[in-house]
Order: sequence, then C-alpha cells, then structure tokens
Amino acid sequence: MENKTQQRHYFDWAASAIPDYSLYNDSFPFGNPSSAHKEGQEAAQALEGARARCALALGVPSSAIYFTSGGTESNCISLYSLIARKSSASLIASASEHPSITENLKKLQFFGKESSLIPVDSSGRVTCENLKSTIEKQNNARFVAIMSVNNETGTLNDIKSLQSLLKKNGVPVHFHCDIVQSIGKIPVNLTEWEVDSASLSAHKIGGPRGIGILYLKKPLEVLYSGGGQEKNIRPGTENTAGALILASCLEKYLHEDNFKKETAKAGERWAFLLKELSKIQRCRFIPYGRQIDDPGFSPFILQAAFRDIPGEVMVRALDELGFAVSTGSACSSSSPERRVLAAMGIDESLRLEGIRISQGWTTTEEEIGLLIEAIKEVLKFL
Amino acid sequence: MENKTQQRHYFDWAASAIPDYSLYNDSFPFGNPSSAHKEGQEAAQALEGARARCALALGVPSSAIYFTSGGTESNCISLYSLIARKSSASLIASASEHPSITENLKKLQFFGKESSLIPVDSSGRVTCENLKSTIEKQNNARFVAIMSVNNETGTLNDIKSLQSLLKKNGVPVHFHCDIVQSIGKIPVNLTEWEVDSASLSAHKIGGPRGIGILYLKKPLEVLYSGGGQEKNIRPGTENTAGALILASCLEKYLHEDNFKKETAKAGERWAFLLKELSKIQRCRFIPYGRQIDDPGFSPFILQAAFRDIPGEVMVRALDELGFAVSTGSACSSSSPERRVLAAMGIDESLRLEGIRISQGWTTTEEEIGLLIEAIKEVLKFL
Repeated sequence: MENKTQQRHYFDWAASAIPDYSLYNDSFPFGNPSSAHKEGQEAAQALEGARARCALALGVPSSAIYFTSGGTESNCISLYSLIARKSSASLIASASEHPSITENLKKLQFFGKESSLIPVDSSGRVTCENLKSTIEKQNNARFVAIMSVNNETGTLNDIKSLQSLLKKNGVPVHFHCDIVQSIGKIPVNLTEWEVDSASLSAHKIGGPRGIGILYLKKPLEVLYSGGGQEKNIRPGTENTAGALILASCLEKYLHEDNFKKETAKAGERWAFLLKELSKIQRCRFIPYGRQIDDPGFSPFILQAAFRDIPGEVMVRALDELGFAVSTGSACSSSSPERRVLAAMGIDESLRLEGIRISQGWTTTEEEIGLLIEAIKEVLKFL
Repeated sequence: MENKTQQRHYFDWAASAIPDYSLYNDSFPFGNPSSAHKEGQEAAQALEGARARCALALGVPSSAIYFTSGGTESNCISLYSLIARKSSASLIASASEHPSITENLKKLQFFGKESSLIPVDSSGRVTCENLKSTIEKQNNARFVAIMSVNNETGTLNDIKSLQSLLKKNGVPVHFHCDIVQSIGKIPVNLTEWEVDSASLSAHKIGGPRGIGILYLKKPLEVLYSGGGQEKNIRPGTENTAGALILASCLEKYLHEDNFKKETAKAGERWAFLLKELSKIQRCRFIPYGRQIDDPGFSPFILQAAFRDIPGEVMVRALDELGFAVSTGSACSSSSPERRVLAAMGIDESLRLEGIRISQGWTTTEEEIGLLIEAIKEVLKFL
C-alpha cells in the first residue's frame, strides 16, 4: 500500500471538525465578566454580545442561551435537573441517544428516576408510534430526550412531529433535543420544533473545545452551584473567548445563504459517495435501505459496512492510506458493542463491520473520489 | 480626577490573570483523542503529554490528573461524589470556602447530606481546634473541604497540619483542597499535604478559560457520565488545546527557580504596598492584625478597608483612575453580603468598606506606587 505524499484526508468531522481558524478571534477582553471594573465590564459586554449573536443565529431569545463547556455538559445539566428538585417525574430517551444521555439514565436510576428507552426503527429513527407507546407505558414520564441527528448513522428524527404528538397528548413534558450533529448540517428551528432544551458544541462546527450551549426555553433547577454565573444555570468563570468564537461559528454556519449553498454542495458530495459506494459489491449501507439523497439522513454522516472486514480493521487500513474515518462515535470508542446499531436491530456481525464516514463544509468531491479509491484498494487486499 | 493617559493597571489577578500569551500554543492536534485514526491518536498523545507535564509540575502521578473545565467544576465533581454512591457520610467545609463549595452544600442537603461549616478565626483561618471540634460534633463527616489560600483575604490554611490532625483522628476522611489561588503563589505540595483531591484553574495563572484540573489521589465515583473520557471522571470531548496551555502555565509557574524568584519579588512588592497603605490613616487591613510580610497570607492578595468609603465606591473611583480592583470575589459579585468577612467576625460596616487588591507575576513596584497615589487621590475627594 503505497503512500507517497502522506497527505491526509479527514472524514471524521462528526467526532470533531477541523478548526475554522478564520473564526478565532485574536483578541478578547480577558477580564472576569463578574468584575465591576472596566476589564470586567468589557468582558461582560463581550459575553453578552456573543450570547446575543448566538441567539440571533439560532432564532431564539438571548435569555434562552446558556454557555456551557460543551454538548455533554449541556445534556447533563438538562438531565440532572430531574433530581435537582423534588419531582416524581420519570424520563424516556431514544435508544440511539449519545452516551452523555444514555449513560446518565443509569445514574439517574440510582436516584430513583425510572427511565426507559424509546425503541428506534430499523433506520435508527424514533417513530411517532414508538414514542406514543413508550409514553403510554411510562405515563409519569415528564422528560423526553430525542436527538435531532444521530451521530453514528446520520439518521434524522422529525423533532417537530414528535413534539406535536406529545403536545397533543396533553401531559406537559420537557422535550430535550441534542442538536450537536445538526447545526450547520440540517435546518434547525428550535422555536418551530418547540423543544424545551437543546445542546450544542462548538468543536463540531469549527470552534474550540470547552465551549457549547445549553438552550433553555425556561430556566431549570440545576444541580451544580457556584458563583451564580449564567444566571445560576452553569457556574464557573465564563469562557468569554470561547463564547465569541462560538458566536462566529454559528453566524457562519447558520447564515441562510451559506447554509443553503454549503448543505446543497454537501448533499451532492454525499450523493456521489453513496453512488460510488453502492457500486461496490461488498459495501452495505447501515441502515440497509438508505437511499442516495435520502432526506431522512444528514448528508454529512454515513454508516457503511464492508463484508468480511471488521470496522476497526477498515479504519486502520484507511488510516494508513491517509484517510481518517471511525467506527462508532468517538465517545463510544471504549465500548465496542455498537449500541446504536444494535438498537436498530442490526445483527452483530454486520455491526462490527460498520464504519462511519463524516464530512464537513470544506470536504471536496476530489477527496471523496480518493476515499472511494482507497476503499477499493483496501478491498483488494482484505 | 485627571486621567490623561488612560493607561490601565490591573490589580484583580485573583479574579482572572492577564493571559500569558507566550504560553499559548499556536498549533495543537485537532483530532478527537478518542478516535482511532492518526489525528485522534496524535491528539490523545498530546493530551497524555499535557497530563504528564502537569503531573510532573505538581509532583504527583499522571494518573491522578483529570482535566476539567475549571476550578468550579473540579470542586463540584469532588463534592457530588458524595451522592454518586450510596453513603451515609456527611461533610464539613470551612466557612471561608469559595461559593462553588458553600453553595453546593445547600444542594447536597437537599439529598440528605448533612453538612456544617468549620468556623474560621478572625484571620479567616481554619485552626486545628476548630476543625477538631467541628468533626467531633459531626462525627459521621467523611469529607472535608478546606481551601489553601482564601480568594478574598489571601489567608493561608495550614493544610498539612489540618490533614495530620484528621489522620491522627483515625477516621478515614476525604480531604478536598481548593488550590486555585495557591498555584504559582505559595508553595503547594499535594503529596506532602496528603490531600485526597484538589482543584485548580488555568485562567488564574495566565491560561485560558474552560480548562482546569481535578487532582484525585484515588478515583471517585462521580455523577455526570458520558463517553468515558478522563477515565470516567469527567465526560466530554477533551480540551486538548487547553490542556497543553495549562501544562505550559504550570511548568512556568511551578518551575522551582522561577517560583522562588517571582514569589520573592511579589513578596517585596506586597510588603511595599502594605507599608505604604499602613501610613494611610483611613486604611485598615482585613484582618486587622495582618502584618507586613506576614507568612500566614499570600503575598498576592490583600483585603483592605478605607474608612467611610464603601468598597463599591472605592472600586469605581479607582476604576476611573485606571486601576482595576474588586470588592469580594468576582464569583460573589451578585451577593453583596461579604460572607467570608462575616465568617471572620468583621462587623457589617467594615465589611462593606473592604476591597481586594491582587497582583500577578508581572505586576511592578511602579504600578503599586501609582495605585497608592491613586488611593490617596480618592481619599482626598471622598
């Protein structure tokens, strides 16, 4: 396997995006936003400016934006609100949620919070029927967590319809939506979706680690306390620099014209990828029925399996050829069980063959062509 | 009040240090450290390198270093370990702790965790007697939180002696120590102090926001779960860039020669500040008995009151003259009660006159001279 140039081609944007350094501010007020002096007040203004810009980009009020350290913390704050106050409410979450949801269900059970998973269909999707039957079985559920785009398969959930169903049901339920893999990738409209909370992370859209957003329609009772920052939702000295870069990322990634143009181009690139892969006999999409241009999937993530090649082996082989792809989510790399695929009813041998290919705005068709060639080369040898 | 130059002099390093940009790496591996490919493995290596460097600087094993988003989160993870497992243990904390400790005691009480505050003496210090009597009264206490340097007064606690007392007591107690205001300021020896956990934050020593350390002698059961990062102690994609800068900060601030030289110089500057302030009749140090060169206080923080001038007014007046000082901690800015000073038995009128002056390694004697002049000018007018 020749590799003359050692040039790398990154296809693991779902794990972490290539940083968009053009959005990294060189200067920002260093003061503590809680300080009364000029340095502090400049920092506070910058932070509130960043909040207003994030809010505008997301089409929600500034008061609903809380800066956190990232998607995982945003999910945790929202989930643990259930034990931060006396409440007999239980919770349900889709079986394909990120581990920062599913792993915490176990912890919450320890506190007496009953929970169950909403089954997903063979595409990894929460159907209205499954949501309905789960909430009927667990009728004290007052918190529902359903992600918008699945991080392993790119499967879209129709959040608006699922929330409509709950609203029709009449029982007030807090709807939490993980939009980490959605921002800049599929149209997100938190207001129209009527979700109560949502989580996102800067490093998935070109920003730095350590900054994210928890969107809260109304303030929640939370667990961790401290110096009262972020209106008592998230304690700790505010990450002003991170918030400013995140605001720039959201402005770029959610700018209407940019978004339309870039997601259309991404869609074309993905259609090309799927078309070329579908010509490879040993390749099978996961889920199997995923169509080229299928509107039920994000055009940024593909899960595919190659017959008789364990996913880990394919990841290693492609890595040697200069291509970064992954198996499951990076956050599940320590547990090889492929929980999300199992929830879709994928049998074990196929699960273990799955790899995830994910792209970003700057991925090119040429790179996809090279990836296809590399995959073919691996298939020749393995 | 003339202010021709508008040059600023920053004396609020305890709230947030002026960033030491010479330590900010321009490049770092952007991959997700949990990813199996080259980009991920480079990031994982960088992260582990940063961990090893932090550990070396702190004189502890690498395996005891967990990266968090900062001091507050480190404190929270440690505290909430008490409810993450079934345990009847209660906790005690010094009455002068940071709000990220004291505010959480209330939350923990909600979970049935009894807690009480260890009284501090008139210097704001936890004495062995007070620790002993508190733990005798609350004999199921298995968690003690005592900070090393108080963030409002600079008062040092003798952690080693306090821990020795607990060890002699024979009952196993988890000793948590907030060293946020100690690193680079007073000698810290976690191994010799025999603490079980400790918290620190990068932005107090020139690093960025959003990165800190939780030192854990032994792993704890924690609350928030997720993708298994940081050996299940702190979930969320690791902040590699932040960890690398923090490592550089710790190497610089804890480098033996640097540390000795810079803290000696800081001590001289503080002696000068205290000497000059003590000549001002309306100035009173808090605590009153604080001596010039007093080894019981950090030479980086001073709390002082000026007769008949509310602290907030002094902060504003100095701010207009180009000097950033604060009243209490930035993290308590929303609650004007001056809880720490109250715990020291300072009466209300004096409490409200208190201001905090804090310096950093790059503060100069000239700046202190200018600050003294500015204070004198304010006193002429108010």
